[in-house]
Amino acid sequence: MTLEDARALDATDPLAARRDDFLLPEGVIYLDGNSLGALPKATPAALADVATRQWGDRLIRSWNEGWIDAPQRIGAKIAPLIGAAADSVIIGDTTSSHLFKALVAALRSNPARHTVLSEAGNFPTDLHIAEGAVGCVPGARLKVVAREDLATALDDDTAVLLLTHVHYKTSDRFDMAAWTARAHAAGALMLWDLSHSVGAVPIDLTAANADLAVGCTYKYLNGGPGAPAFLYVAKRWQDSLASPLSGWMGHAAPFAFEDAYRPAPGMKRWLAGTPAMLSTAALETALDLWADIDQHAVATKSARLFDILAAAGDALGLDCVSPRDPARRGSHISFRHPQAYALTQALIARGVIGDFRDPDILRLGLTPLYLSHEDVWRAGDILRETLESEAWRDPAFAERLAVT
Amino acid sequence: MTLEDARALDATDPLAARRDDFLLPEGVIYLDGNSLGALPKATPAALADVATRQWGDRLIRSWNEGWIDAPQRIGAKIAPLIGAAADSVIIGDTTSSHLFKALVAALRSNPARHTVLSEAGNFPTDLHIAEGAVGCVPGARLKVVAREDLATALDDDTAVLLLTHVHYKTSDRFDMAAWTARAHAAGALMLWDLSHSVGAVPIDLTAANADLAVGCTYKYLNGGPGAPAFLYVAKRWQDSLASPLSGWMGHAAPFAFEDAYRPAPGMKRWLAGTPAMLSTAALETALDLWADIDQHAVATKSARLFDILAAAGDALGLDCVSPRDPARRGSHISFRHPQAYALTQALIARGVIGDFRDPDILRLGLTPLYLSHEDVWRAGDILRETLESEAWRDPAFAERLAVT
Repeated sequence: MTLEDARALDATDPLAARRDDFLLPEGVIYLDGNSLGALPKATPAALADVATRQWGDRLIRSWNEGWIDAPQRIGAKIAPLIGAAADSVIIGDTTSSHLFKALVAALRSNPARHTVLSEAGNFPTDLHIAEGAVGCVPGARLKVVAREDLATALDDDTAVLLLTHVHYKTSDRFDMAAWTARAHAAGALMLWDLSHSVGAVPIDLTAANADLAVGCTYKYLNGGPGAPAFLYVAKRWQDSLASPLSGWMGHAAPFAFEDAYRPAPGMKRWLAGTPAMLSTAALETALDLWADIDQHAVATKSARLFDILAAAGDALGLDCVSPRDPARRGSHISFRHPQAYALTQALIARGVIGDFRDPDILRLGLTPLYLSHEDVWRAGDILRETLESEAWRDPAFAERLAVT
Repeated sequence: MTLEDARALDATDPLAARRDDFLLPEGVIYLDGNSLGALPKATPAALADVATRQWGDRLIRSWNEGWIDAPQRIGAKIAPLIGAAADSVIIGDTTSSHLFKALVAALRSNPARHTVLSEAGNFPTDLHIAEGAVGCVPGARLKVVAREDLATALDDDTAVLLLTHVHYKTSDRFDMAAWTARAHAAGALMLWDLSHSVGAVPIDLTAANADLAVGCTYKYLNGGPGAPAFLYVAKRWQDSLASPLSGWMGHAAPFAFEDAYRPAPGMKRWLAGTPAMLSTAALETALDLWADIDQHAVATKSARLFDILAAAGDALGLDCVSPRDPARRGSHISFRHPQAYALTQALIARGVIGDFRDPDILRLGLTPLYLSHEDVWRAGDILRETLESEAWRDPAFAERLAVT
């Protein structure tokens, strides 16, 4: 792959024009959109509108002019990205909070079973929250096993299988339909964390027959730092599952001010407190960019971007820990390197922003909406230059970089 | 009280200049700042900065340039408003979420006791969340009694007394020190909800020896719609209480990516997911306005604003349900009226924005930072004009207004 090859791919890229929808700093190749997505150009104006007009001018009236329904309205905009019915998704709070609610509800839905099963090395908050959730249901416990032991660990005590669709370190992707079927065959519910896959790979929760899902909107969806997360509950469970975080916004009649809690019908019962409307407005703006984007075009471009960096890594003898088969991975590529931290810092100093994942992973995110093939080719070239130079291996150099 | 009297009070009002810190719509007297505070003039620029520079230009680097410490930094800015040590307050998520965590932690801290005691007619989310919290602790239960029965209901099974400092309907204020002492005498922890009092009346949690507190920042603190809420944990409890919502941001080493949860020291353990930074930035800007404001000047002005409307209500024969003694109330005034809904709508149509609280309360918020005595006098005069006209009592008129 040469620079000319990369440019030729850009010339016929159906997503090339999408780059103009984002504001990106000069002199930077941003390969960390899998951690914090870039700023859509439309977002600052949307924030100015929600602050100055909606809040400042309309004040309390805005609750009746679009705010109160925002969690469901925005959930419906995420639905097509995850293969869900529009009224089976809601946004708000954090992925952690949605995980907690979904796990407690899932455990309670089947009191004859007591185990949340998950994978060792899953994204930490999934395991931490699962620890907290099992602590809230008498008799419940968390079982964490290596990926290769998951199938045998699924048993008649498993209430819910909690898996992250795309692994945050390696980019490994579970076969959603196969694992959902496996969980169901064992009599368990299937809860997917889509944080590292939504907006990165095609997802069809309905076809997979998944029960529950959560996900993050500040990565590939570009909702902004700490943007509200989403929760999916299959329609067949919407009446019987209820939230342990039973706050007023999830009440059937929040403004009747009743002392006793009555869960709202549908997804609204998963709300708790008042939604953070400024962050919510930024998320809605970012999602509107996805309205006419073909998920399969995104996946195709992601695979090409991956191949460019994988080839660069191969030429440098780097240890790529991400699967070569695009159907088995997300949209980032990770290399294992004994000096991964110093290498990450050296790349940042050269304008290639990726990130380090403890203890030895250099992780580079591939976001098809705003990265060109040329960008990624150049990143590979800078990776080569960096590794060929020796300065970055000097601990004093790495330390100086670490504070920038 | 005449218009000239009100103007004379404005002429010597030490807070008069604060009005210039806010953007308020023309032609409106905004008496709903106890529900959604007004927009500080500095907020739109702060939002533009967090979006365009911090997110758009600095991207992921901003987490190390001020974002990651924001929950504690901003908590420390709330601390002086509630009489708390700087390192005993943290912001994030919602009041509902903080209530849930604090209640579950409080119940677990004393397993020999099982009861959360609270007041009938408390703000709904407090009771709803308490229902959810007791459902997460084996043997726990929620006991809700009328205010006059609280003292006798406090017994040797009470683990925590949950009270809202200022009542959202009536404006009644509990004596914080006396009720905290009563809870302690019964061997219970004291958890205050400060949502309707922070920024409205002087608060001293330390002097009262309170154990736990939560509060809302989008009312008198002007943090923006759904702004992050705060949690206070007395230092004596910080090591022994832990959050059931054990997410990665509350981990002792969130970026070590350990499978097992270890709570962070201090207040950080109460964080769960990634904070919503856009809403958080707006909150910080709003709090900076409070840095040199004297809480007692706020309380003094609040009392005068109250007296103006109370006198107007008396002259009209309205039933004021708020205490006359300023030490026994918050910063809003409520009138009971059989047609309170239609009356609220009619006032809104005349540019006086207050709110209706089911079933028969007209509630008017008095925010000393951006209301003048003249504003409030004029609101009283418009209340008189409205009641003297007959149009607003016509159901068709009220219905037409209700959709605006």
